[in-house]
Amino acid sequence: MRPTQWFPALSWLRGYGPAVFTQDLVAAMIVTILLIPQSLAYALLADLPPHMGLMASIMPLIVYALLGTSRTLSVGPVAVISLMTATAIGGAGLETPEQKMLAAGVLALLSGGMMSLAGFMRLGVLANYISHPVAAGFVTASALLIALGQVKHLLGVSMDGHTALELAVSLGQNVSQTHLLTLGIGGVALVGLYASRAGLKRVALGLGVPDFIAGLLPKMVPLALIAGATLFVIWAGAGESGVQTVGRVEGGLPRLTLPWLSLEQVKSLLGPAALISAVGFVESLSVGQTLGAKRRESVSANHELVALGGANVASALSGGFPVTGGFSRSVVNFEAGAQTQMASVLAAVGIALASLFLTPLLFYVPKAVLAATIIVAVLGLVDLHVFRLTARFSKADFTALVLTVVLTLAMGVEVGLVTGIAVSVLLHLAKSVHPHVAEVGLVAGTEHFRNILRHDVQTRDDLLTLRLDESLYFANAKFIETDVSRRVAGNPRLNHVVLQFSAINSLDTSALESLIKLNERLEHGGVQLHLSEVKGPVMDRLQRSTFLEQLTGRVFLSQFEAFNLR
Amino acid sequence: MRPTQWFPALSWLRGYGPAVFTQDLVAAMIVTILLIPQSLAYALLADLPPHMGLMASIMPLIVYALLGTSRTLSVGPVAVISLMTATAIGGAGLETPEQKMLAAGVLALLSGGMMSLAGFMRLGVLANYISHPVAAGFVTASALLIALGQVKHLLGVSMDGHTALELAVSLGQNVSQTHLLTLGIGGVALVGLYASRAGLKRVALGLGVPDFIAGLLPKMVPLALIAGATLFVIWAGAGESGVQTVGRVEGGLPRLTLPWLSLEQVKSLLGPAALISAVGFVESLSVGQTLGAKRRESVSANHELVALGGANVASALSGGFPVTGGFSRSVVNFEAGAQTQMASVLAAVGIALASLFLTPLLFYVPKAVLAATIIVAVLGLVDLHVFRLTARFSKADFTALVLTVVLTLAMGVEVGLVTGIAVSVLLHLAKSVHPHVAEVGLVAGTEHFRNILRHDVQTRDDLLTLRLDESLYFANAKFIETDVSRRVAGNPRLNHVVLQFSAINSLDTSALESLIKLNERLEHGGVQLHLSEVKGPVMDRLQRSTFLEQLTGRVFLSQFEAFNLR
Repeated sequence: MRPTQWFPALSWLRGYGPAVFTQDLVAAMIVTILLIPQSLAYALLADLPPHMGLMASIMPLIVYALLGTSRTLSVGPVAVISLMTATAIGGAGLETPEQKMLAAGVLALLSGGMMSLAGFMRLGVLANYISHPVAAGFVTASALLIALGQVKHLLGVSMDGHTALELAVSLGQNVSQTHLLTLGIGGVALVGLYASRAGLKRVALGLGVPDFIAGLLPKMVPLALIAGATLFVIWAGAGESGVQTVGRVEGGLPRLTLPWLSLEQVKSLLGPAALISAVGFVESLSVGQTLGAKRRESVSANHELVALGGANVASALSGGFPVTGGFSRSVVNFEAGAQTQMASVLAAVGIALASLFLTPLLFYVPKAVLAATIIVAVLGLVDLHVFRLTARFSKADFTALVLTVVLTLAMGVEVGLVTGIAVSVLLHLAKSVHPHVAEVGLVAGTEHFRNILRHDVQTRDDLLTLRLDESLYFANAKFIETDVSRRVAGNPRLNHVVLQFSAINSLDTSALESLIKLNERLEHGGVQLHLSEVKGPVMDRLQRSTFLEQLTGRVFLSQFEAFNLR
Repeated sequence: MRPTQWFPALSWLRGYGPAVFTQDLVAAMIVTILLIPQSLAYALLADLPPHMGLMASIMPLIVYALLGTSRTLSVGPVAVISLMTATAIGGAGLETPEQKMLAAGVLALLSGGMMSLAGFMRLGVLANYISHPVAAGFVTASALLIALGQVKHLLGVSMDGHTALELAVSLGQNVSQTHLLTLGIGGVALVGLYASRAGLKRVALGLGVPDFIAGLLPKMVPLALIAGATLFVIWAGAGESGVQTVGRVEGGLPRLTLPWLSLEQVKSLLGPAALISAVGFVESLSVGQTLGAKRRESVSANHELVALGGANVASALSGGFPVTGGFSRSVVNFEAGAQTQMASVLAAVGIALASLFLTPLLFYVPKAVLAATIIVAVLGLVDLHVFRLTARFSKADFTALVLTVVLTLAMGVEVGLVTGIAVSVLLHLAKSVHPHVAEVGLVAGTEHFRNILRHDVQTRDDLLTLRLDESLYFANAKFIETDVSRRVAGNPRLNHVVLQFSAINSLDTSALESLIKLNERLEHGGVQLHLSEVKGPVMDRLQRSTFLEQLTGRVFLSQFEAFNLR
């Protein structure tokens, strides 16, 4: 491998000039303003102290900038991964806040290690097994769980639980304790965020603000709202008002640390770490590919695994928690004009400066405003379109989708995701167990053969052609053997059976044995067995067995030739 | 459902007459003679007292006779299931022999319940997921484990362990304690059994013995050897000789009992019970179908599940352990001329009589002779042919086979079987992730299209036809999208891309989304997308989406039509 393959950054660093730097710098400043509140909010969501959010937004960005293949992907804490982190830590039976912080670091370390290993082993292809409906259902259900969980900060009450039911029950028990001033602040923030999304750009354009700035204005609103709410809390007299605020945020630069727990506890985090790796990778790759397609850059799945793995290990070693490429932050980066990963490096510098100098200002940030920004962000991830699409298009996909959503809400993120993946794979397999077998005939005036039940076609009394609509393998070999025998059984005028292999893409040993048995059984009944339209790879394989010598009939290049046999 | 569907026995009981009864009676007598030593031997193998073997050979036969769809299958203890029972009991951490007996009953009860439930839910098809190479590998490895485990009885030493390594180490430590008289008896039995298999029938035929009796003679040898060895031990003075014998066998008829343990212990037996159900069902179904094919009887998978489930529950409730349809006993039953399951009912009566009156005779049966019969029986199950076949025919099958064998030997039956099944399913899935895509052209003088790399075909500069050799689903949708885009990219003269759908048997939502994206992407590049040879079921599904309206090109009935488009 060449150095640019190990460090894709080398390809854009060569010839990097002031013009591009200016563009990257502008993007970095805008992203930094977005990232500061986001980092705090996602740490809150992950049930961790706010400075871990800041730490997770410094070193991981720099490592990804060196190793990543996407030029505009922005890495850091994201909503779904933060929720999964909170669930994993909650389920590990840890007592003290210090242990929870260590566990978050261990999760990042483990999932970083797993991602890198998977990348080196070129296992990126495994991510394909999280189907789009399962991924969309999982994100939708997680978003609802996250939004529900944040209601406690909006109301200023306490709530417990990792499932929708637990959270709802807990909310019902505590809603009477609602702190009205907190609700007021949160409510204003919610309305402000939604209003700015809906109309701010249009209003600004109407006032003659340039298109570029008008488009970015709504992204600045969270920071403005946070600043306003913080000033209000200070004015109202923080302590006495009863509004919960972020409190003391440890500042300073990232320090090297190695998070670890007892071997038992680390083992119990292996499963959650694997799920976090899978979800993080799928989300990040999909964002990277979407952005890459717009600028005709190619994003390599296995390189991305290594790069995201490196970013997570960096997060763990510098006091952060699991990170991945996020949708909203990457889009902001892209739209703000970032040309290379230098924008992310500069954003990391921005966050580091904030961590050094601005943490005292964060003390009075009300949690209710952070919760409002989380709720608005995650409700944007809810995808109802996919329900309508799959309901109409594929029962299997719809089943997997609904199961994923229901189980994620009812039993938590881990059960929901694992069940969704397992069910979609099993339903895919189930389709191939009883394959479609079509009796075909000649479409008049052509050399083309179609199903006799759907088309007006010519057939021969002494020749039966069956098109087997599935690759033959152990799970359906017996079915095909029985089905073909059954179709031949009640047909005394038959001399020839042709199996049209146009839809058979592979063949395993069990299928070979079934074909041999079928050939023998038909031979006993005085019927010759022929094959037609056998594809190259399948023919190659058949030639490695003795089946072609045993075959009573012939192998025809085309079904038309087979149909004309005498 | 009609009564004969619930009780297939009704179909042969109607019109049952003395001629058939005579045939069944002869078969029953022969099977009984075989079953008495087999029942004792497999109880020994399962690490259970001998009378449990007799109990497992009475009620299960009667229940299967009523419910089973095979007329000649013989149900009872079999080697591999007995080994799995021993492993499951050994792994459950039980202390006393009484608890082990209860655990064996619980295993039969659980696996019987699972089988019946699976039958009622029509899940028999799931058995197809144990591919032939995995099943053959599992049986071969189990046979080797069983044979190795029985060496202790041949040598008269003690040995421990459930894996090949553990057994071999234990053998090495204890081999110096070998009891020579025991080894002598076992050795003579082994040689006698092999010699009778190899030549007894031929010798008997040479002496003018009728064919039918000559064929059955080798099956009688085990009982003769056991009788001879027992008389020898009595003559040699049992106690002083130091030869280990079966000892006191509790006699009498089966009594109703409900085996149960603590909830914790029952839970720990659920996994092993599921594996025992799966293996028992696959073995029995394969024997039933093989025999059924010879007499043109059909054996129904789901009925068989219910019947085998009933037989196991009956075994549990009458003091037995897990049973299934066995290969050797069923073949003996079939060859001895059994016409209906009445033969099994009569054999059950025979065993019951033996249990009532003959148990005192069993006291002095040397364990070494039983071990010799087990070793000879299981070594007949070793299948080396499947290694050669899969090595040549399918790397995936060979991998699954070797893993199953190695892990069964090295880590025990449960790990070996589960890994074998999982690996064969994963390797099957892996094949479809990077499907074969062939560029095809017209075979001159026909309307048939083949791969341009393998055949001499005609193509058009402005039209690219790609045959996609795999059903499209979530795991390969992205790959196809990228692969087709890549092939189009470097081809400026191209105006049309035709996707030949002849090998596409199904399409899920992810694949639909990839097709929509591909259509859009090609449209941007000024290239029309067409489909050809779309099968009925796939077309039905596409019509449920808006894709066909968005499609820039057309859907052609045949690839030849598509090739001639202007």
